[in-house]
Amino acid sequence: MKNTFGQSVALTLFGESHGGQIGAVLDGLAPGIPVDEAFIAHQLTLRRPKGRISTARQEEDPFVIASGVFDGKTTGTPIMISIPNQNTKSKDYSATRFLARPGHADYTANCKYHGFEDYRGGGHFSGRVTAGLVAAGAIAIQILRNKGIVIGTHIRRCAGVEDRAFGDLPADLAAVNELEFAVLDEIRAKEMEMKITQAAEMGDSVGGILETAVIGMPAGVGEPWFDSVESVLSHILFSIPGVKGVQFGMGFDMADRFGSEVNDNFRMDGEKIVTATNNNGGINGGITNGMPLLFSCVVKPTPSIYKEQETVDFARMENAPLLIHGRHDPAIIHRARVVVDSVTALALCDMLAQRYGTDYLV
Amino acid sequence: MKNTFGQSVALTLFGESHGGQIGAVLDGLAPGIPVDEAFIAHQLTLRRPKGRISTARQEEDPFVIASGVFDGKTTGTPIMISIPNQNTKSKDYSATRFLARPGHADYTANCKYHGFEDYRGGGHFSGRVTAGLVAAGAIAIQILRNKGIVIGTHIRRCAGVEDRAFGDLPADLAAVNELEFAVLDEIRAKEMEMKITQAAEMGDSVGGILETAVIGMPAGVGEPWFDSVESVLSHILFSIPGVKGVQFGMGFDMADRFGSEVNDNFRMDGEKIVTATNNNGGINGGITNGMPLLFSCVVKPTPSIYKEQETVDFARMENAPLLIHGRHDPAIIHRARVVVDSVTALALCDMLAQRYGTDYLV
Amino acid sequence: MKNTFGQSVALTLFGESHGGQIGAVLDGLAPGIPVDEAFIAHQLTLRRPKGRISTARQEEDPFVIASGVFDGKTTGTPIMISIPNQNTKSKDYSATRFLARPGHADYTANCKYHGFEDYRGGGHFSGRVTAGLVAAGAIAIQILRNKGIVIGTHIRRCAGVEDRAFGDLPADLAAVNELEFAVLDEIRAKEMEMKITQAAEMGDSVGGILETAVIGMPAGVGEPWFDSVESVLSHILFSIPGVKGVQFGMGFDMADRFGSEVNDNFRMDGEKIVTATNNNGGINGGITNGMPLLFSCVVKPTPSIYKEQETVDFARMENAPLLIHGRHDPAIIHRARVVVDSVTALALCDMLAQRYGTDYLV
Amino acid sequence: MKNTFGQSVALTLFGESHGGQIGAVLDGLAPGIPVDEAFIAHQLTLRRPKGRISTARQEEDPFVIASGVFDGKTTGTPIMISIPNQNTKSKDYSATRFLARPGHADYTANCKYHGFEDYRGGGHFSGRVTAGLVAAGAIAIQILRNKGIVIGTHIRRCAGVEDRAFGDLPADLAAVNELEFAVLDEIRAKEMEMKITQAAEMGDSVGGILETAVIGMPAGVGEPWFDSVESVLSHILFSIPGVKGVQFGMGFDMADRFGSEVNDNFRMDGEKIVTATNNNGGINGGITNGMPLLFSCVVKPTPSIYKEQETVDFARMENAPLLIHGRHDPAIIHRARVVVDSVTALALCDMLAQRYGTDYLV
Repeated sequence: MKNTFGQSVALTLFGESHGGQIGAVLDGLAPGIPVDEAFIAHQLTLRRPKGRISTARQEEDPFVIASGVFDGKTTGTPIMISIPNQNTKSKDYSATRFLARPGHADYTANCKYHGFEDYRGGGHFSGRVTAGLVAAGAIAIQILRNKGIVIGTHIRRCAGVEDRAFGDLPADLAAVNELEFAVLDEIRAKEMEMKITQAAEMGDSVGGILETAVIGMPAGVGEPWFDSVESVLSHILFSIPGVKGVQFGMGFDMADRFGSEVNDNFRMDGEKIVTATNNNGGINGGITNGMPLLFSCVVKPTPSIYKEQETVDFARMENAPLLIHGRHDPAIIHRARVVVDSVTALALCDMLAQRYGTDYLV
Repeated sequence: MKNTFGQSVALTLFGESHGGQIGAVLDGLAPGIPVDEAFIAHQLTLRRPKGRISTARQEEDPFVIASGVFDGKTTGTPIMISIPNQNTKSKDYSATRFLARPGHADYTANCKYHGFEDYRGGGHFSGRVTAGLVAAGAIAIQILRNKGIVIGTHIRRCAGVEDRAFGDLPADLAAVNELEFAVLDEIRAKEMEMKITQAAEMGDSVGGILETAVIGMPAGVGEPWFDSVESVLSHILFSIPGVKGVQFGMGFDMADRFGSEVNDNFRMDGEKIVTATNNNGGINGGITNGMPLLFSCVVKPTPSIYKEQETVDFARMENAPLLIHGRHDPAIIHRARVVVDSVTALALCDMLAQRYGTDYLV
Repeated sequence: MKNTFGQSVALTLFGESHGGQIGAVLDGLAPGIPVDEAFIAHQLTLRRPKGRISTARQEEDPFVIASGVFDGKTTGTPIMISIPNQNTKSKDYSATRFLARPGHADYTANCKYHGFEDYRGGGHFSGRVTAGLVAAGAIAIQILRNKGIVIGTHIRRCAGVEDRAFGDLPADLAAVNELEFAVLDEIRAKEMEMKITQAAEMGDSVGGILETAVIGMPAGVGEPWFDSVESVLSHILFSIPGVKGVQFGMGFDMADRFGSEVNDNFRMDGEKIVTATNNNGGINGGITNGMPLLFSCVVKPTPSIYKEQETVDFARMENAPLLIHGRHDPAIIHRARVVVDSVTALALCDMLAQRYGTDYLV
Repeated sequence: MKNTFGQSVALTLFGESHGGQIGAVLDGLAPGIPVDEAFIAHQLTLRRPKGRISTARQEEDPFVIASGVFDGKTTGTPIMISIPNQNTKSKDYSATRFLARPGHADYTANCKYHGFEDYRGGGHFSGRVTAGLVAAGAIAIQILRNKGIVIGTHIRRCAGVEDRAFGDLPADLAAVNELEFAVLDEIRAKEMEMKITQAAEMGDSVGGILETAVIGMPAGVGEPWFDSVESVLSHILFSIPGVKGVQFGMGFDMADRFGSEVNDNFRMDGEKIVTATNNNGGINGGITNGMPLLFSCVVKPTPSIYKEQETVDFARMENAPLLIHGRHDPAIIHRARVVVDSVTALALCDMLAQRYGTDYLV
């Protein structure tokens, strides 16, 4: 459905980097759910560029909830959240209008939209559009917390530096959700920030891996085939610009293991069935098994770099050198983290509402 | 949509491992497309277990096209393909009815279906249900070939043995599509088969990584956000039992690279725009750029192993040892390969029909 | 979605009049619902042609449930119901292959399917395909009955003869559901049958109006806009071949009334809110109000008549006279009635499952 | 999909009568389509209340296109159209908060939204929300005109007064599309206006029938079953508040006719196949036959009347008299007409894009 995701709880995204407004319409939430605008603002803050490791484009993101919330609670009808674009310097882009920035969508946008795309700042492809995802996702994150379901993401790896693995999940998720730069080990956090700064100084950029855990999901959610939890989550995770890989549990490391190493044995934990290990990331046969959901995404290095690159002018159809101006991030992984949490929450809300009915989310 | 995938070209899957029939309904294809039943039979052969490296359950898969094909061509109305189950030994399963096989869906099925699931041989979760995907996918693969779009998958890695990378794609895809055991390097193929046999002898199982390439896709297909090519392909790839990770282009290896290493520079190749490298797997901003699509999936080791495992009896809610009987594969990666090709073809047909209209696929 | 209807409970239809099998895949039902094959057979009997007022093509409709039912109960996975075609006389149709039968889909099928359609007996357009709807609908009707929701349809008008209006709904629905020729007033039933026989003797056909009531629906189901109860029901009712109008409550008769005559005043009936009249057919603002759903469909006279008609040969692109042979119904309204009940039940099950969750329907 | 309609061209609706903004997101249009803001403004004018026959709530509807249009043309990405609410007198509604207005959605909204609905002015159920449909529909109407497809609707019947039938369609559609009060016969127009004024003076309201014709649709669009042209159009037509019946071609009048009277004979008209009559409204078997589409909708009398009515207080659960204040229309049929044109255009654009691809609509 192009810019709409979800069946029972559905999100529609709109906007361009330098257009009038960006935003989202969130439909299908039950009525009576408290909407905490301060929390939405907080989540948007996490997405906003910060300090030397981010772009110089700084915006307040003063969102407006234009419909669907009344007296501080959801009405059950579509919630339109609008965020005006303010600090736009559109002139930066016109000079390089037809030069395809490597790793970016300029050329493919031109193939698809035949030159009518709003090319300024990446247009509809811009990471800025994720602000709509984050604002809507903030509502979904709160809904899940009220049901005892907590999502948290840390930067597992960035520029060759590795954070420690998740350990005690309730504590780690609580901790990571307080952090602006979501790394569990403070020393590693400093190292990563230093590496990002170094890359920025070289006019280059770095990527990394985000690792996410979700605790509190009931067992029995998801479908065996096309709507497996992996299918639905990967669908929306790959919607995030820059994500080029998604894995669940042990993921690609399973390739070299034996079944006897990878199978998660079941055992009783009091009255509850648990698994001794969680290599399958809380999902068997596409369906949640009650263990924490575990997955990770690779985020590629930001394609906007300040080194000269070789490319083509697709208007003239000839080779051309490119030197990118404008304001860009040497890394987006620390900002992408709240987007991952947001889309995860939206997808889980949809799955839960499909399974248990609309009112389950209240 | 649970067991239906796709919008313009849509597949609906049905069946259980030990039920009457498995199969699929493929809707939305243009009329007048030749359907080669011999090719469907051939593709089903690739999925079927073979020799010592597979389960002893051997079936002929004598499919029936029950509707939607007339005089050897598609009519434009739904194609129902039915495959009767024949060689079923259902008694194998009743003894272990309530013992959750680790890594399998027995427990999650019970959570979701409250004990009413057909538990025999994995029921609707069984890999056997992929025969419906393969039969329908065979039609899609042929459609794409007629448009000059060729898909091929090799076992990039299995049990610690690595095949050589794809090189000359047209030649490699032609070669790999002739192979039953899809490994480009013959010596590595033998090594992998030996490793699988060894694992089988130990009562254990192995997994691996499938690498897929698609050549001939036009530029400009896909969507920026929720229907990015990565989103749609990963959605259906994660529907395949055992797939726990999907990555595009360089994938997770991007985590430690600089933007300057990962960005694919554009350049003119005669009249055509190409990229010098293809680290992004033929996709920028969710949209095809005309380069080959490249992606890989990790397939976990088959969860059915013959070693004793610890688990629970979920009827009695108590710990219990488990020794699996029945007929099982020590590896499914060589069989999963044709499933990957099939679902890829189905998803690409859908994307192309959405973009260019129904009749484009004729 | 072409041949798939529904979101939470979804039906996929397949088959052609003279193909191998017709049938349906019913996905999304909760597990543990008893499936009464005798009731399915009974419902199929109501759809089957009977006596002098129907076509001479008589089939047993020996359906097969190929998946999704285990030990007499739904498993929660897709239910495939297959009905083989048996009594086909395909030669009847080849002579008039390119003569567009007026009122039929021959010409539009040719426009859409470019001549590749299975033209025999109407192909995929044939009323015979409704057997799949009826078989699946029978399961849905039973589910609703178990929830206290009862659907019934009578022939309100046929060939100028009018049945009495619904009165005491529980009694009338119970009565009408026992009838093969669903007319409340026995004398009017005889008159209608006589009119149909007379039309048949003239080589002509007649139509009529089906009036449907549903009792027991909870208040609060449906959506304000695109998924209003009227929208969803009309969508599937207009899928039935021959239906050319759908109205709710007083319907088209509202055109000449005042608001004060049409508004249904609310009043307390003990602890329950009811309306004094039910001109809005149990739906306000697209949402059920707890009163009986009331709607009616007009079914056009069967287009197959035995009088010579003027038409075109669309292969030769020239005018041509047409004399239809083959076996046809002088009226289908009495057979369409069970199709209306079936699709109504399918749509209501979907709406209820969306609202209250999958397990509500158990 | 609740508040989203369409597959290839999809509309998402949001807003409440007295909230911050109402509007719509229109996704899936091809890039490069000119968007004429003056025409959107003109269409909104047709929807706005006028003179003595409408509500006293008069708004300018100063819409904003917030995304998806660049340099006056569609970009191919979602078009968000926002319309601020201005002239709201919310105090009018609080006094009657729990009194269910007969014929309105107050009670059903309460059943569905449990009291959290924005009750002011009908909230999300308000006819005011149709402004979003009209703004988006204006773009769709223009697209179709550029393809030679023209839609027009007249008030066929209102308050017992009947307009003449459509005659020469190109001329009648051109004429009717210039009219604010869309009645072909001027004298009948005056009579209708007088009848509406009389009803208003009595504190009552009237309804009527809108008849729509579409010329220029190609043959071969639509689907045999669930996406029949009748199904898709009725789905969106029944989304319009107050529509309680939809019929195609001769519609309910077919009930008393013979097949020989209703079948539309085909004949050659030069090189083109046409039908001698058009009782089937341009649709055979759910698919367009190239003749004009003809359909009509009944619009019920506005439920808001100024006579005292009997109802319930659903907070106290007791009977209560009701005298409605606020500003209301004695008829909405003349305003609903542009909504009918709008939703028809949206649905046809979607069907055409599905059939012929996205770029067909340029």
